[in-house]
Amino acid sequence: MGSTKKRAVCLLSGGMDSAVAAYIAKREGYEIYALTIDYGQRHARELASARRLARSLGAREHKVMLINLRAIGGSALTDSIKVPERKNAKDVKANHEIPLTYVPARNTIFLSIALAYAETAKADAIYIGANHIDYSGYPDCRPEYFHAFQKLADLATKTGVEGHRIFIRAPLLRMSKSDIVKKAIELKVPLELTWSCYQGGRKACGVCDSCVLRRQGFKEAGLADPVEYERT
Amino acid sequence: MGSTKKRAVCLLSGGMDSAVAAYIAKREGYEIYALTIDYGQRHARELASARRLARSLGAREHKVMLINLRAIGGSALTDSIKVPERKNAKDVKANHEIPLTYVPARNTIFLSIALAYAETAKADAIYIGANHIDYSGYPDCRPEYFHAFQKLADLATKTGVEGHRIFIRAPLLRMSKSDIVKKAIELKVPLELTWSCYQGGRKACGVCDSCVLRRQGFKEAGLADPVEYERT
Repeated sequence: MGSTKKRAVCLLSGGMDSAVAAYIAKREGYEIYALTIDYGQRHARELASARRLARSLGAREHKVMLINLRAIGGSALTDSIKVPERKNAKDVKANHEIPLTYVPARNTIFLSIALAYAETAKADAIYIGANHIDYSGYPDCRPEYFHAFQKLADLATKTGVEGHRIFIRAPLLRMSKSDIVKKAIELKVPLELTWSCYQGGRKACGVCDSCVLRRQGFKEAGLADPVEYERT
Repeated sequence: MGSTKKRAVCLLSGGMDSAVAAYIAKREGYEIYALTIDYGQRHARELASARRLARSLGAREHKVMLINLRAIGGSALTDSIKVPERKNAKDVKANHEIPLTYVPARNTIFLSIALAYAETAKADAIYIGANHIDYSGYPDCRPEYFHAFQKLADLATKTGVEGHRIFIRAPLLRMSKSDIVKKAIELKVPLELTWSCYQGGRKACGVCDSCVLRRQGFKEAGLADPVEYERT
């Protein structure tokens, strides 16, 4: 009864990047096991987007795991630190410091849970929408970080010991935001379902790092963003 | 106001091994930030033990993080798979296969959360009670696994990028169970507070892998175990 298709666990946040990464996995022939981590972030609205995206992907399963990173704190995304506002993308990138929206060890926690799920679901790969170009301030979005996680994954699991490798894939790692937008259009990703804003408003705020980078990506790609913004 | 003592995040399950590891950290001069992960395991009784141990350690903080690994499954510790019964320690070690009690990617998930906590608490080290001698069947208890996690930790965090290393310590890794028992006595670990059994009974079952290895350790050390067993 089991499908013979290869399987991928896709980390799906509800945002544009992880949606594009999951659609790339689908295009590459994987059966999708979607995984959303609810870590007590402000923008719970992303969870509704993740559910709709999992449906539109035709995911075989969609697991939502609750893990309360608020209990640990240390980030503007989980604490009451104010999310910074930006004028434009240059303003985001000019900030060479690690952003306030950095969540301690977030990708490590996400990939660890994805690894457990991948092992249980007998998956061949894990897809994550991490990007090194726009989010160069995040240590856990660097290529060397993902290489280190691949080595860890090979050693960490029963699957790995038995010779079945689970590949860690970050297909957007070296793509610009406008390339991501173009890829989304090419793969017919339902962008109207995605939610990138760091705030939890009715409309996207338009001025947080995530909104600013997304809007810049659409502008550079010469395409219209189906999402409505509060401030433009 | 801040203490100048070095700080260690200590993964504290409530069992004997993690208690000994935490007492080693304390002996080495660390201020203890205890972390217990409640992953939906059967033996919730361990949580009460972890709370008492954190108090006896004089921990600065004790965080209990809930993460429902049952949602992922794949282990006798989180699923309804029967925990295997053993006659003696040789019977446990003779089983060269990865045990049914292996929880997919457990140490990776635990260390990831500990890493996030260590970064937020500005800790210098993470202590874990993993052991490679008795639990040689677990891929994530091997020395090479911990080396790979150290490399990942150096790359994964803001702290690491800023040149402050968080050391991953598994001081029991190469100790026999009887050496662990002797170390516990030497450090005055309140062993009567620890709970090692994989089952959730009123008394420890005496026949699961964990009970069998613990009892063998006390026997070899020539010491009495303060915990009561259902079957002997």
